[in-house]
Amino acid sequence: MIIVTSIGATDSVIAHIVEHVERVGLRVNVSRGEQRTIIGCIGDHDKLIAANLMRLEGVEQVLKIGKPYKLASRAFASSPTHVSIGDAAGTVVGARELIVIAGPCSVEGRDMLHETARAVKQSGARALRGGAFKPRSSPYAFQGMGREALELLAEVRSETGLPVVTEVLDPRQVELVADFADVLQVGARNMQNFALLSEIGRSRKPVLLKRGLSATITELLMAAEYVLAEGNTQVMLCERGIRTYETSTRNTLDIAAIPVLKRETHLPVLVDPSHAAGQASLVAPLAMAAIAAGADGLLVEVHPDPTCAQSDGDQSLTFAAFDDMMRQARVVAGAVGRTIVAPSGAATPSAIAATATAEV
Amino acid sequence: MIIVTSIGATDSVIAHIVEHVERVGLRVNVSRGEQRTIIGCIGDHDKLIAANLMRLEGVEQVLKIGKPYKLASRAFASSPTHVSIGDAAGTVVGARELIVIAGPCSVEGRDMLHETARAVKQSGARALRGGAFKPRSSPYAFQGMGREALELLAEVRSETGLPVVTEVLDPRQVELVADFADVLQVGARNMQNFALLSEIGRSRKPVLLKRGLSATITELLMAAEYVLAEGNTQVMLCERGIRTYETSTRNTLDIAAIPVLKRETHLPVLVDPSHAAGQASLVAPLAMAAIAAGADGLLVEVHPDPTCAQSDGDQSLTFAAFDDMMRQARVVAGAVGRTIVAPSGAATPSAIAATATAEV
Amino acid sequence: MIIVTSIGATDSVIAHIVEHVERVGLRVNVSRGEQRTIIGCIGDHDKLIAANLMRLEGVEQVLKIGKPYKLASRAFASSPTHVSIGDAAGTVVGARELIVIAGPCSVEGRDMLHETARAVKQSGARALRGGAFKPRSSPYAFQGMGREALELLAEVRSETGLPVVTEVLDPRQVELVADFADVLQVGARNMQNFALLSEIGRSRKPVLLKRGLSATITELLMAAEYVLAEGNTQVMLCERGIRTYETSTRNTLDIAAIPVLKRETHLPVLVDPSHAAGQASLVAPLAMAAIAAGADGLLVEVHPDPTCAQSDGDQSLTFAAFDDMMRQARVVAGAVGRTIVAPSGAATPSAIAATATAEV
Amino acid sequence: MIIVTSIGATDSVIAHIVEHVERVGLRVNVSRGEQRTIIGCIGDHDKLIAANLMRLEGVEQVLKIGKPYKLASRAFASSPTHVSIGDAAGTVVGARELIVIAGPCSVEGRDMLHETARAVKQSGARALRGGAFKPRSSPYAFQGMGREALELLAEVRSETGLPVVTEVLDPRQVELVADFADVLQVGARNMQNFALLSEIGRSRKPVLLKRGLSATITELLMAAEYVLAEGNTQVMLCERGIRTYETSTRNTLDIAAIPVLKRETHLPVLVDPSHAAGQASLVAPLAMAAIAAGADGLLVEVHPDPTCAQSDGDQSLTFAAFDDMMRQARVVAGAVGRTIVAPSGAATPSAIAATATAEV
Repeated sequence: MIIVTSIGATDSVIAHIVEHVERVGLRVNVSRGEQRTIIGCIGDHDKLIAANLMRLEGVEQVLKIGKPYKLASRAFASSPTHVSIGDAAGTVVGARELIVIAGPCSVEGRDMLHETARAVKQSGARALRGGAFKPRSSPYAFQGMGREALELLAEVRSETGLPVVTEVLDPRQVELVADFADVLQVGARNMQNFALLSEIGRSRKPVLLKRGLSATITELLMAAEYVLAEGNTQVMLCERGIRTYETSTRNTLDIAAIPVLKRETHLPVLVDPSHAAGQASLVAPLAMAAIAAGADGLLVEVHPDPTCAQSDGDQSLTFAAFDDMMRQARVVAGAVGRTIVAPSGAATPSAIAATATAEV
Repeated sequence: MIIVTSIGATDSVIAHIVEHVERVGLRVNVSRGEQRTIIGCIGDHDKLIAANLMRLEGVEQVLKIGKPYKLASRAFASSPTHVSIGDAAGTVVGARELIVIAGPCSVEGRDMLHETARAVKQSGARALRGGAFKPRSSPYAFQGMGREALELLAEVRSETGLPVVTEVLDPRQVELVADFADVLQVGARNMQNFALLSEIGRSRKPVLLKRGLSATITELLMAAEYVLAEGNTQVMLCERGIRTYETSTRNTLDIAAIPVLKRETHLPVLVDPSHAAGQASLVAPLAMAAIAAGADGLLVEVHPDPTCAQSDGDQSLTFAAFDDMMRQARVVAGAVGRTIVAPSGAATPSAIAATATAEV
Repeated sequence: MIIVTSIGATDSVIAHIVEHVERVGLRVNVSRGEQRTIIGCIGDHDKLIAANLMRLEGVEQVLKIGKPYKLASRAFASSPTHVSIGDAAGTVVGARELIVIAGPCSVEGRDMLHETARAVKQSGARALRGGAFKPRSSPYAFQGMGREALELLAEVRSETGLPVVTEVLDPRQVELVADFADVLQVGARNMQNFALLSEIGRSRKPVLLKRGLSATITELLMAAEYVLAEGNTQVMLCERGIRTYETSTRNTLDIAAIPVLKRETHLPVLVDPSHAAGQASLVAPLAMAAIAAGADGLLVEVHPDPTCAQSDGDQSLTFAAFDDMMRQARVVAGAVGRTIVAPSGAATPSAIAATATAEV
Repeated sequence: MIIVTSIGATDSVIAHIVEHVERVGLRVNVSRGEQRTIIGCIGDHDKLIAANLMRLEGVEQVLKIGKPYKLASRAFASSPTHVSIGDAAGTVVGARELIVIAGPCSVEGRDMLHETARAVKQSGARALRGGAFKPRSSPYAFQGMGREALELLAEVRSETGLPVVTEVLDPRQVELVADFADVLQVGARNMQNFALLSEIGRSRKPVLLKRGLSATITELLMAAEYVLAEGNTQVMLCERGIRTYETSTRNTLDIAAIPVLKRETHLPVLVDPSHAAGQASLVAPLAMAAIAAGADGLLVEVHPDPTCAQSDGDQSLTFAAFDDMMRQARVVAGAVGRTIVAPSGAATPSAIAATATAEV
């Protein structure tokens, strides 16, 4: 940290500041400017977090240097972390292949889940999402099918081979959800639910950590740090839109978060265009933008009949719309050096490119 | 809900929308305008939450009418809820007396807690706050003294008679914290931790529910609804500043939230000027504003030596600054028809008013 | 400015940074920490604004020290600026008297303006506001009566003695508006209209500068600096709410801006509760909060019949509501050591205080 | 507009509301629900803008239907507007070719401008940007070279054939700037400078209208409406990032604004990744995202030596970085069915695609 004194701070005032810093065990470097004196603090900066420097007489500014995250930082691991999801080898997030996770907002029953899983797999999704426990703004809204949904997800995984991603809301449910799911999702509202993060950190399941509604990028990385600090290194980050004054979309997708995160951390970065958009017609353009900006994966809501969905119907894609999106995604991914697996029997990317171009 | 069709929606398109609404059990009133048709939906609107009307062909807008909160609304209880805190009669939030809750951010030890409790009581505080479990952005920061802090709080309550307010972070700790505390505080980061809210709703301890960092007023009331729906009716709301682009304060105190909440709900409304300000020198002006705008109480951080506080030292008041604030608060409260208890032997409000005026 | 190098920056990289800084004419102080080197830049910092330090190899952070405003700062003038408005002595903004400026959003005609002026004067207003040129989001909305409104304002001033405050939108109109008005108002949308600010700076009329919709406090002070730098020292600042995600009010009144501005600048600080609230019922509580937080004055919209107002009818007070607000304002002002002039024949503040208290 | 009454509004209250609406010349359709009555207003809704319905007794909500923009809307012109820039045929914004406008933030001299123009043209830019009059937060910062810069821009146009885009700040300068420039740029700070918009609307030069720092998409379209209403139909919109709480970028690029605007308006949509990013290293990823999301063009800052730029050096690209960006842009554009002109002698897109892929 760097302390900037106010104009005209006297020698004794400066000496008192220095003494305060040295008392917590740091060394100082004092540099006298024309108007202000600058006091650099050298040593373990965590000691200064509680030093309350702004309360000292003669302190005008306290400037932080460095980053508060450690295990999540590029300095800790310069090569990208690859997160393997599911038991079978193959689905790896953070490598050259761009991973699409798709499925319904909520698991609403066996048939709709099977049907959706088969459809998204056919279009190229590599994992299935589906909510069992739903965080809802209203206590009167559908709260998810709970354990029954977890069992259905496991059943569909057996059938399709798709690993399963589902949200956990409560530290008391981590063990239960981990018994069924391949990836534990932490929702935006729980990004700073530290009890939950710590519990998940003690699990060894991969984690999909969504950015909070108004969390900074630094706070997202500090939330990841809670999981990493408990020993769970399999953390994926997910940008899903932030809250701003603009109301034409459900949230404002912070597309720049992708390259900023890629610079700051070794963890994979996914994007959820569905929650950012809040409207089905905007999901594909946001998905294309995310891919072009360097995302490692997408999280997309798909439903057999969005007009009847129990939650998030406005933003869920139909199977046909998802398939269209995936065809376009494959071409855009190719343009930025990434791949998206083509379903067996599908046309090659270059052929699709030609088609896509012609259709626009 | 009201559905507005797009310009030129045909009769068959409109008929299809009507059919969709009627299928979920509502009646409709169709009004044909010059350009658009308006379809009013009559009946239990919760049924429409999952109706995904925006996905229907020919729907341009879906307008919500009414309020989503029920138990928290003025329609449910038109007279203000009074929340009694502590076993002894006397401390009632929501009545004419304005209640000030003060104390350290974190309980850091026996001596500092006793000293602070005595000081804030002497200045007119009616309850003691103090963190036992601390939600911290960094896993490496001080996380609170936990159970030991709860025991110290109970000990100090015995000595001073001040009821105790402390935060609970984890649904697994609700029972433990309720054994010691008089008020269960839900912090801003947990405002939409629905597992925690439901668990607290099953307790019968009064609840102090802080507004989330970027929660709307409606979302705050819906969070209260989670607690109320479980049967715990003793809920106090707390405005503590929201996240905006402005960085000159820690948060932006949404002062208008006070009269808006007083209009919308029967629950008492408190204000935490300390977290809004983030700087000790701004706490008193924000506290005065809150009182003048109609707050039922204040939550203020006070520490024997803020330069040595383990958390929130920048915004904690010294005993002397808190005492000054309380003297001024008593006068401003009087100006808006509220009272703040004067410590025994204190000057009467009118005498203080004269002094305050002379000093400015 | 302070430059923080990245971890592992080599000697030659650091030497290159130092050379770059010295080339623009500053001296440096280099302090080597355990991981990073800190380079303090000493001299005229304006030279560094264009130094693009982040582009240099090995630079991780560039930290600004000090404040960009000069003439507006407390360092330039430690005692408060008093702004006299109107030719007749007496109306001074920034002194112990709290000045209330009231009137219609737009001047809509002679009768309504005369009637409003008389009513607000009777209730204690010290100046009259009224729009002649209106900035409207829609080109199809009422744009104000223009020059005719200016003439009406001058006419009403002659009759009532109230100085006149009106907005100027266009640098080409500054001279015209200054011919009629006592105070030139710069609206929120024009806070960074630098051509307008400079033109107004060349006038010698007092200026009421409103904070932009999403302007920081620093940007507001820099906008004032544009006016001050042209030689016009009679600048009043006005907080009127900022844009946030919250939609229950038209804007979010940043109540903390009052004490922050009082700390940073010698210029008077007014508050416009009408535009912050957007609803008449919230104007009085916000006005009380502003007074309690230390505002030097208020700007309030009043209309003979708000249901028929051409603009801002939702937030305009009736004469009766304004009179009620002023009675309460007088008491709250007294509680914080300020005065609001009582109309002749009015009860004394202490008597009103008793009444107000009884009524709440 | 639709009026929703409060619960329990009596017949006479409803009759009074209806009477108020009918008095301004609209017809009503009254629909009585179980709790609330809904009053649809039929006719010219502009009449209701000033109807102040919220002030009427018994009104709980006023819901707007339809869009306030007319000339800018898809309803007015369903096919996309093509804006031709420059005298020579060829540069058309809004068609299949994606147009890149590049150049320095400020014109700083003849040599740097010529050099930059040649470089960006060589890499595929189709127009030259360069500031002559600069809006700066500080009155002490470089304000641009003014008229001399305009002359240099015209000179470089003659040499390179690139049309010239430059900002106009002041309604008094519109004629001067229009004499030299091919496109009149309105900066973010002036998006609601209605005097300037109207003056530009009376010009017949194409306009590049940037979104204000915290303008909604609707407000951006209403600003365009000011220009269109004066008869200038050659308007291009530009998303350049909005102000949010996130500080890791200069602004938050609202990438969803692209598809939302494409749905709402027939006007072309450009993106300025430089101002959104604020850092050169983020410009290319944001540019790719913008292309993938459907932008019609880009506005990019390029400087011969960003470390010496007089303004925006942190975010300006070097010639080499711009050339890299353009190579990648060409491939991504191809993936979404758009083209970017290749400089003569350049490799074909498909060949570049292969290279790009290999390099990632």
